[in-house]
Amino acid sequence: MREEEFRFKTTVRVRYADTDAQGHVYFANYLVYFDIGTTDYMKAIGYSYEKLLEEGYDFFTVEALCRYRGEAFFDDELQVGARISKIGNTSFTFSLGLFRNDVLIADGHIVNVMIDRSSKKPARVPEGFRKAVEEFEQNK
Amino acid sequence: MREEEFRFKTTVRVRYADTDAQGHVYFANYLVYFDIGTTDYMKAIGYSYEKLLEEGYDFFTVEALCRYRGEAFFDDELQVGARISKIGNTSFTFSLGLFRNDVLIADGHIVNVMIDRSSKKPARVPEGFRKAVEEFEQNK
Amino acid sequence: MREEEFRFKTTVRVRYADTDAQGHVYFANYLVYFDIGTTDYMKAIGYSYEKLLEEGYDFFTVEALCRYRGEAFFDDELQVGARISKIGNTSFTFSLGLFRNDVLIADGHIVNVMIDRSSKKPARVPEGFRKAVEEFEQNK
Amino acid sequence: MREEEFRFKTTVRVRYADTDAQGHVYFANYLVYFDIGTTDYMKAIGYSYEKLLEEGYDFFTVEALCRYRGEAFFDDELQVGARISKIGNTSFTFSLGLFRNDVLIADGHIVNVMIDRSSKKPARVPEGFRKAVEEFEQNK
Repeated sequence: MREEEFRFKTTVRVRYADTDAQGHVYFANYLVYFDIGTTDYMKAIGYSYEKLLEEGYDFFTVEALCRYRGEAFFDDELQVGARISKIGNTSFTFSLGLFRNDVLIADGHIVNVMIDRSSKKPARVPEGFRKAVEEFEQNK
Repeated sequence: MREEEFRFKTTVRVRYADTDAQGHVYFANYLVYFDIGTTDYMKAIGYSYEKLLEEGYDFFTVEALCRYRGEAFFDDELQVGARISKIGNTSFTFSLGLFRNDVLIADGHIVNVMIDRSSKKPARVPEGFRKAVEEFEQNK
Repeated sequence: MREEEFRFKTTVRVRYADTDAQGHVYFANYLVYFDIGTTDYMKAIGYSYEKLLEEGYDFFTVEALCRYRGEAFFDDELQVGARISKIGNTSFTFSLGLFRNDVLIADGHIVNVMIDRSSKKPARVPEGFRKAVEEFEQNK
Repeated sequence: MREEEFRFKTTVRVRYADTDAQGHVYFANYLVYFDIGTTDYMKAIGYSYEKLLEEGYDFFTVEALCRYRGEAFFDDELQVGARISKIGNTSFTFSLGLFRNDVLIADGHIVNVMIDRSSKKPARVPEGFRKAVEEFEQNK
């Protein structure tokens, strides 16, 4: 996986709080970085998490996978590549990559299920969201 | 400060996630341990956070202080001593101590302001809470 | 997946720090709970992380997967079921389950690669570790 | 306290992971933001944490105080003002302020003790560090 596969990238800086006694970033915190990637991606395509909430939706994560390819350290500046690679009826999947100077540190995915914000029940992915993703990725 | 000064103590185990690249517990996480102390104290005196919420209250932290006296490490079993040492009109203060085998690791305090859960405005500390604290501490 | 599939289980209590603005446990923190499961498992089979370090080994996580089946909330007492389900030449895989009152909240796995502590290069899983796992799981 | 009191400021963005079930940033995470302020300050004065380590020093935090003046929320862009306001023989104190659009969210301080990296014993604050701070603050 390479950085250029992602039309969208955002920057994350490693906090001291993110490290562990092995001297590198604690493994669970890669998901925190992926999460930042998904948030910023949604903003970039013009369909932010706030907008989703306002329109009566929210989503729950149903699966998260991370493959660790290298280490990250305190104060590293990392690039998170994010892309919605699949949209189903009620779910959508982010593909994610974490890079330092174009070197892959980790990759993975996060699968979310769209829900109705008040009933908390699964809801169809809103058409506007679907279109925003398609348009953004086609312009790659 | 000594463990026996606290009528109430609860146990916390250090998670690997709590450590940092210096090999010990990251300094901000001592506040997490203090927080567990305050939660468990409220349960112990019969006035849990859940009960407070049900009665229409909540609280915000307005000050937190931690003095670091020693280090804590992965998998340590720590004792958190907690006591409400002061109750004002709308605020109440926890005194806290963190110990490992009776050796002080850290002490400090957390000052909270009681609020009305819906208006989010400061509210008088409910009489029942005040009494629960007094009774608990007097039986020391 | 059911709790009884795991010969080993350990208890984790949800800290307020583990929650997020959706009101439940933040998704990355399930990996923290899984991590506690793996630590306690190693102790239970008589081959703790400390022992591993003393014998000149350490390990890196190469893959982590979590499937979210339900929500967990502040102060929940959760059971983490852990089991080493596969041991290769240099890698070993934990299967994990997270339960509240026997209801599955999440499951997943963590794949680790054994390394030589000083060279940081992959190392054969030590025979003693392999045996400790086999003996523990066979007594199920 | 006002932003302009600080010659040095750095930006922190609130991660979803930083929030709690009250919907705002968890109180202990303000110390994480303060910590970023101290790290970036040291870089700005030309005496980074890495440089300190290379020269055989390290430091431990002995006191941290935070006064909460407002709330911070997911995705907020915050300014952390940092300044070394006091240098003793072996200790140095950071004064810190957290702002959103020039509105004070929190202030506090962090007191550190310089140590010899290998012996872990208190060490005199190195002259170069002292000078770097003085020069930086005098140019205010």
